[in-house]
Amino acid sequence: MKAEPRLHAPDVDEVLQLLVEDPRLRDQLRFVVEIDRLKSIQRRNLLVDGSRRENSAEHSWHQALMAMVLLEHAGAHGSGAAAEGAPNDASDAQGSSLDAGRVLRMLLVHDLVEIDAGDTFLYDTVGYQDKEARETAAAERIFGLLPADQGAELRALWDEFEAKESPEARFAGAVDRIQPLLHNLLTAGSQWRHYGVTADRVRLANRDVARGSGSLGAVTTALIDVAEQRGFLESAPQSDIQGDRPGPMDDAPGAEGVSGDGIGA
Amino acid sequence: MKAEPRLHAPDVDEVLQLLVEDPRLRDQLRFVVEIDRLKSIQRRNLLVDGSRRENSAEHSWHQALMAMVLLEHAGAHGSGAAAEGAPNDASDAQGSSLDAGRVLRMLLVHDLVEIDAGDTFLYDTVGYQDKEARETAAAERIFGLLPADQGAELRALWDEFEAKESPEARFAGAVDRIQPLLHNLLTAGSQWRHYGVTADRVRLANRDVARGSGSLGAVTTALIDVAEQRGFLESAPQSDIQGDRPGPMDDAPGAEGVSGDGIGA
Repeated sequence: MKAEPRLHAPDVDEVLQLLVEDPRLRDQLRFVVEIDRLKSIQRRNLLVDGSRRENSAEHSWHQALMAMVLLEHAGAHGSGAAAEGAPNDASDAQGSSLDAGRVLRMLLVHDLVEIDAGDTFLYDTVGYQDKEARETAAAERIFGLLPADQGAELRALWDEFEAKESPEARFAGAVDRIQPLLHNLLTAGSQWRHYGVTADRVRLANRDVARGSGSLGAVTTALIDVAEQRGFLESAPQSDIQGDRPGPMDDAPGAEGVSGDGIGA
Repeated sequence: MKAEPRLHAPDVDEVLQLLVEDPRLRDQLRFVVEIDRLKSIQRRNLLVDGSRRENSAEHSWHQALMAMVLLEHAGAHGSGAAAEGAPNDASDAQGSSLDAGRVLRMLLVHDLVEIDAGDTFLYDTVGYQDKEARETAAAERIFGLLPADQGAELRALWDEFEAKESPEARFAGAVDRIQPLLHNLLTAGSQWRHYGVTADRVRLANRDVARGSGSLGAVTTALIDVAEQRGFLESAPQSDIQGDRPGPMDDAPGAEGVSGDGIGA
C-alpha cells in the first residue's frame, strides 16, 4: 500500500483494541500512552545549560538516577558535606537499609498527577492552597487507567511519597528538592530571580532535605549560602507567585540574566 | 545582597568544591550535573501528540515506568496479544522471577552514552557501523566521573543491557523497542515516512522483542501489520539513512503529514 501524503493519526483506544486482545495488557498500554503527556508539563527550573525549562518526565528520570547514585547518603545522620567532613559510615549503614527499588519506583511515579494538575511551583503560595485537591483528583483518573491491582500499587507509592513518613519517601523527597536547587545555582539563580524568590523562603521550603539525608541537607545549607553571597538569591521579602497549570508553555523565562552556557563561568 | 541584572553562571567544579568536602559525594554530584545533558539529546521519534521530537532523558523515564507496569509480561512465552488470547499465567510466572530493580536500573542508564555518542537511529546503517566504538568511549568518560565502585556498577548495567543475554536485559530491550513503535503508529508513522523506512526493515529490526516478552512480541507483529495496512509504512526498498550526532537540533521533522493531535482521529 502506498503512503498517502497526509494521514490521520489513529485513535488510541480503537487501535489498541485491534492490537491487543487481553484487556489487562490493553489497559496497561493505554496507561503507557497516557503518561507520555508528562513530557509536555513544564517545570519552573531551567536545564543546567540554561537552554530551556525542564519538563516533569525528564525531571523524574534525573531524580531516579540521582537516587541510585546517592542512596548511600540516605538517613538523617549522613555526612559528607563541607560543614562536617566526618566519615560517612552512619549514612552508609542507613542508606543500605532502605528499599532501593521502592525509592526508584516512587520517584518514577511521583509527578504523574501533574498530567492533570500541572506543576505547582514550590514558592507558589496560591497554587499550594488547592494543590492537594487537584492532585488527588488527578491520581484517581491516571492510576485508574491501570488494572485495579496495579493502580492501587502505584497510588500507594504516590501516597507514600507525599506523606514523607517512611525513610524511603524522606530520601526521595530530599532528592526531589536538591535537584532544582542545583539547577538554580548553576544558572545563576535564574528562576529565583525571575520570580523574586528570597533566601529565607528557599531555606524554609527546603528545611526537610536533612530529614531524608543529612549529607544532602548540609549541601543544601551551603548551596543557599553561596547563592545568597553571589547575588543569585535576595534577602528582601516578596509577593506571592501565581501557579502554573497545564496548557501551552507560558512566558518561559529562558536564560535571561545568565551569561555563558551555564557550565563554565 | 542585591542581585545584579546580569550574573555569571558558576563553574560546576569550582562551586561543588565550595559546597561539598567529601570527594566521593562531590564526584557523585558532578555526575548528577553532567547527566542533565541527556535531556538535550534528540531522538528520531515524536511524542505521541506529534508536537516535537522526544529526548533521550524523558524516553528513559517512560521506559522505566513501562517496565514497572509490563513486567508480568516478561519472558518469551508471555501471552496477551490479539493473536493468542490464552491466560498469561506463564508470563506472570516468568515476569515475577526477574530482578525488577535491575530492569529499572538498566533502563535508567541505558542511554547515558548518548550524551557523547548521540542517538543512533535504529534504521541508520551508516551510524551503526561505528556505534559501538563511539558508545564505548562515551561509557568510559561518563561512568568514569563516578567513584570507581559506582562507575563499574553502572557500566556493568549498561554492558548487560547491550549484551541482551540475561532475561532482564532481553525484557528491557523489548520495552526499548516497543515504545517508539507505539509512538510511530500513533503519529501515523511520522518518522517512518519521513525517513522512508519500510515494513520489512521494521520487522527485521524488532524481531527480538519476542525474546524479551512473548506478549509484546505479538503486539509488535500486529502493530506493524496495522501500520502497513493504513499506509504508515511502505513495503518498497529504501536507501540508507544518515546518523544523528549531538549538536543543535537538525531539521526536526515535526508533525508534517499528521492530522489531528495524535490522539483521536
